[in-house]
Amino acid sequence: MIGVPGAGVAMHALIAELYPICRSITGAGLRQTLARIAREIPLVVHEVPSGTRVFDWTVPREWTIRDAWVRDAAGRRVIDFQRHNLHVVNYSVPVRARMTLAELRPHLHTLPDQPDAIPYRTSYYKESWGFCLAHRQLEQMPEGEYEVCIDADLHDGHLSYGECLVPGSGPDEVLISCHACHPSLCDDNLSGIAVAVFAARALAQARPRHSFRFVFLPGTIGAITWLSRNEDRVGSIRHGLVLTCLGDRGGFTYKRSRRGNAPVDAAVEHVLRHTGTAHRTLDFSPYGYDERQYNSPGFNLPVGCLMRSEHGRFPQYHTSLDDLDFVAPRSLEESLAVLLAVFQVLEHNRTFRNLNPKCEPQLGRRGLYSGLGGTDIRQQELAMLWVLNLSDGDHDLLSIAQRADLPFAVVAEAARRLAAHDLLAPA
Amino acid sequence: MIGVPGAGVAMHALIAELYPICRSITGAGLRQTLARIAREIPLVVHEVPSGTRVFDWTVPREWTIRDAWVRDAAGRRVIDFQRHNLHVVNYSVPVRARMTLAELRPHLHTLPDQPDAIPYRTSYYKESWGFCLAHRQLEQMPEGEYEVCIDADLHDGHLSYGECLVPGSGPDEVLISCHACHPSLCDDNLSGIAVAVFAARALAQARPRHSFRFVFLPGTIGAITWLSRNEDRVGSIRHGLVLTCLGDRGGFTYKRSRRGNAPVDAAVEHVLRHTGTAHRTLDFSPYGYDERQYNSPGFNLPVGCLMRSEHGRFPQYHTSLDDLDFVAPRSLEESLAVLLAVFQVLEHNRTFRNLNPKCEPQLGRRGLYSGLGGTDIRQQELAMLWVLNLSDGDHDLLSIAQRADLPFAVVAEAARRLAAHDLLAPA
Amino acid sequence: MIGVPGAGVAMHALIAELYPICRSITGAGLRQTLARIAREIPLVVHEVPSGTRVFDWTVPREWTIRDAWVRDAAGRRVIDFQRHNLHVVNYSVPVRARMTLAELRPHLHTLPDQPDAIPYRTSYYKESWGFCLAHRQLEQMPEGEYEVCIDADLHDGHLSYGECLVPGSGPDEVLISCHACHPSLCDDNLSGIAVAVFAARALAQARPRHSFRFVFLPGTIGAITWLSRNEDRVGSIRHGLVLTCLGDRGGFTYKRSRRGNAPVDAAVEHVLRHTGTAHRTLDFSPYGYDERQYNSPGFNLPVGCLMRSEHGRFPQYHTSLDDLDFVAPRSLEESLAVLLAVFQVLEHNRTFRNLNPKCEPQLGRRGLYSGLGGTDIRQQELAMLWVLNLSDGDHDLLSIAQRADLPFAVVAEAARRLAAHDLLAPA
Repeated sequence: MIGVPGAGVAMHALIAELYPICRSITGAGLRQTLARIAREIPLVVHEVPSGTRVFDWTVPREWTIRDAWVRDAAGRRVIDFQRHNLHVVNYSVPVRARMTLAELRPHLHTLPDQPDAIPYRTSYYKESWGFCLAHRQLEQMPEGEYEVCIDADLHDGHLSYGECLVPGSGPDEVLISCHACHPSLCDDNLSGIAVAVFAARALAQARPRHSFRFVFLPGTIGAITWLSRNEDRVGSIRHGLVLTCLGDRGGFTYKRSRRGNAPVDAAVEHVLRHTGTAHRTLDFSPYGYDERQYNSPGFNLPVGCLMRSEHGRFPQYHTSLDDLDFVAPRSLEESLAVLLAVFQVLEHNRTFRNLNPKCEPQLGRRGLYSGLGGTDIRQQELAMLWVLNLSDGDHDLLSIAQRADLPFAVVAEAARRLAAHDLLAPA
Repeated sequence: MIGVPGAGVAMHALIAELYPICRSITGAGLRQTLARIAREIPLVVHEVPSGTRVFDWTVPREWTIRDAWVRDAAGRRVIDFQRHNLHVVNYSVPVRARMTLAELRPHLHTLPDQPDAIPYRTSYYKESWGFCLAHRQLEQMPEGEYEVCIDADLHDGHLSYGECLVPGSGPDEVLISCHACHPSLCDDNLSGIAVAVFAARALAQARPRHSFRFVFLPGTIGAITWLSRNEDRVGSIRHGLVLTCLGDRGGFTYKRSRRGNAPVDAAVEHVLRHTGTAHRTLDFSPYGYDERQYNSPGFNLPVGCLMRSEHGRFPQYHTSLDDLDFVAPRSLEESLAVLLAVFQVLEHNRTFRNLNPKCEPQLGRRGLYSGLGGTDIRQQELAMLWVLNLSDGDHDLLSIAQRADLPFAVVAEAARRLAAHDLLAPA
Repeated sequence: MIGVPGAGVAMHALIAELYPICRSITGAGLRQTLARIAREIPLVVHEVPSGTRVFDWTVPREWTIRDAWVRDAAGRRVIDFQRHNLHVVNYSVPVRARMTLAELRPHLHTLPDQPDAIPYRTSYYKESWGFCLAHRQLEQMPEGEYEVCIDADLHDGHLSYGECLVPGSGPDEVLISCHACHPSLCDDNLSGIAVAVFAARALAQARPRHSFRFVFLPGTIGAITWLSRNEDRVGSIRHGLVLTCLGDRGGFTYKRSRRGNAPVDAAVEHVLRHTGTAHRTLDFSPYGYDERQYNSPGFNLPVGCLMRSEHGRFPQYHTSLDDLDFVAPRSLEESLAVLLAVFQVLEHNRTFRNLNPKCEPQLGRRGLYSGLGGTDIRQQELAMLWVLNLSDGDHDLLSIAQRADLPFAVVAEAARRLAAHDLLAPA
């Protein structure tokens, strides 16, 4: 596994910096987040005007939130955006009113099954307002009159997204996409942002074959906007991953691309299988994060989604419990290592042709095979036999590694040694 | 599930009326059965002369049975066709003789393992005669002389079969086939006849897209005769089912067509999976009922066989224990509901094309998506996402339902709603 | 199962005769072994000069071993080739020297985990010498000076291999390959040799359709040499098997050809499944015996490997414990029966066409179907229905047997009977 020692602590520190910012699909919080990312990696920030048509959608207005609260009869802020930005329904329209608890109640969102957690709710595409709070707190609110304020506004402005390109030596691209619109939620998706940032930094030193394009954008509308503005580019995308929920302590979850058998699917499954950590693989479904857009039938890009715990399936998901304690440096570091190992597979996966296809070549006289007969074979030698046997032009190294049940790196090294002895050439 | 309330009791009553009739592959009992069916649904009865060549076979003579008995020395009818028509080997040639029990014994058929049951035996294609009786009864018959009488005759006449066509709006046909040659046996196959009759009645009110052709015919020779006279029609048959053993209390058994992956196979498996009742699926084999003929390699029609308990695999099968108690109104009603649900799938299964294939369309502004973000998705919305994602021209609604693991009806409704909003069009 | 009664004892006796000979990849022992085989079956022995280029390899020199020993200070032979020919590393260069135990030790090979077993070691392609001995014996050797002698030489000569052709009536060939280079080791591979010899004898009386070519050759270099000299012939090879480890008491192991779905793979798996003995099947891997060469990508011949215990996976493998007691007459006889049954399948596997493809033919009037209706079907009749149903030109008898889950012989007999009644013809 290709690790970046110390990266886990550094990623957690970055998450801690970004955590308090109240992001949304547009506006200052998103822009501030992109600015912070830009201090880590070269980032081009794009601003797309409100009202721009992007396929079936329209870029929405910018949301500015200054304050929000509910005051009781005694004037105490019983719900206070200043204490937790999840308290306000994200993208709420402004409101200033007095009302009874009964009138207020339809605007209050809680989780009766998780009475101490503040839920995360949004209302992007329907004009509405509301507050989120712990159910236990709601139960303690007496009947009577309350004063309600959401000091926000929606105005024409821009949708922001950031792009970091690590240029490759060849024409093929890898797309890495993270949604950057969620407010104070760590696993979803500051973890994905942090892992992407550190992966981009690691790649920049590697002179890769593929270009790696990292996009940080608001969920759904951001991906749709990006695709709308990059239709001519998507033909170069050979592999892609949506990153989310990469900091929790659960095992890995990989959701395959719509194609189901894309090279990126094989690469992630191979790496997870050989890391030895717990993991499971899900077939594609059109519900989730921005893989929904990348895998829409008009694009059908080979984009999977790499997670630890599956989004929507753990109790902390979309609640105030998805906080700084919920994400662990060690988990982040392991996620980064898995991602970089996947990149290694994609980078080094090639199809070769055996130049000596009739019978095995005599590896021994080339110093590639141990001398003493009768004993068992070494893994490296076995890998060479597999590469020779399957390099008929139809099998790439990854498929050879899978069939041989050997780590990709061992198979790639075997290919390198065989090529160095003129026994193998690119197909 | 599309139920027909009260149909179970009505089907059982129809079975009770048909039960006493002594049917065979030709003759009065078969004709009387078709006449009774014709009182329920429009039925065209065809009469094919004995001696007609039908592929490798010849339409046999008509069998008339008036009486049959074995009398003991005291003149008592110890075996008596009047008491149960299974007592005579079906299609026996006439006989009138005196003989010892030893001489009679080769003509007596019993089930030593089921000593109280009268077996059902036939001798259609080899001239022979015999009696069937409970093994316990045979054991009590003293040695000595017996008088034997089968008052029957075989003469040139006709083979009868009935056809009920529910015409459809399009050119495609669904074939439903029931054998109607078994005498007093309820599950095999008065149950199949009753379910077919009630399905035809339900369909007649539905103005279906497919034409539904119900055939009631003697097993083997009837199906061969029908195919022989309808070779020019079979090209229109898109789906087909043989119905038998649909009244017992067992779970469902579906035997696939020879193709194994025909749409009818997928439809039945889908419906059974989503009914929640116990069921199992068998691969095609060339033994069983008339699916043998429909799936012969020269036709290879997509015809499966729907049963509850698998024919030949339950102790009551082909014995006097397959009586009116063995079939239950509730089972019949459930079988009818499954069959109608399968028809619904076949009727509504279409392939659509997503008219907005690049990214998801904005369902929310069309009122197709609930407003509040952050919460989990509803089944109907999920179904819409699946239909949009897979409507690339290669997936019909049934394959989408299977991949989404959603009931077909939910997926079909999602398609209907999307089409109503011009987001989907027939492919 | 096609048995050859008494063959087990006879094969064991042949193994016992061959056991003491010190074989290698070239030289007198190999030649003597081929001469002994030639007394059982017609064998053409080929001699290929040292130095001949065979693909990437060169035919090596002949190795002559006369004696080898290590004497202690008292002049006693503490390691003695005369007692067991495994004591010398096979293909050792000559040596005559005095040295301390410390100097000798790098040339001594033992198995610490199996302290009583002498390992089998070779040094074919690297000039070297050594001795093999029981680890317990090594532990008892005192420090001090030893006299070492390997009275051997390597000189230009020939590589020998033997070929026995059982000619067939048609153009297609079956290749059976056994390595014959191992010294006193019974399961690996005197067992394979013995089974091949007896199979060739049995076939010679059978006037087969295929030509069966049995090759007895040194491992690796022998197969490479054979392929190099027979490139124009390999196009006729339809099926092939490497035979090894066929005398031990373990269940069968079948390693598939590289293609994985070759007819020989289906045939062996079918026979093993229907023998009822324990067996398992392995996917191809490019490590093992000469299937490595036959399945190299430039040839990709459909050659599997039939074994009982898997080579390299049992403790006696490549040690002095693989002796005459380790192989059992009964195991050898069963292995021969399996091999002959596989040959039967390959010989009789044909594709037929149903001449009466529309509906079933009336088997009863041809005496092919039992008379009394209502009872269950017999296996032979069921087999006829399967053959008729699937003989559409796309299914050979073996695939029909597999789909019907019936023994091949039953299906082949059904086809024979149907063909005799003009219901079936070769496709």
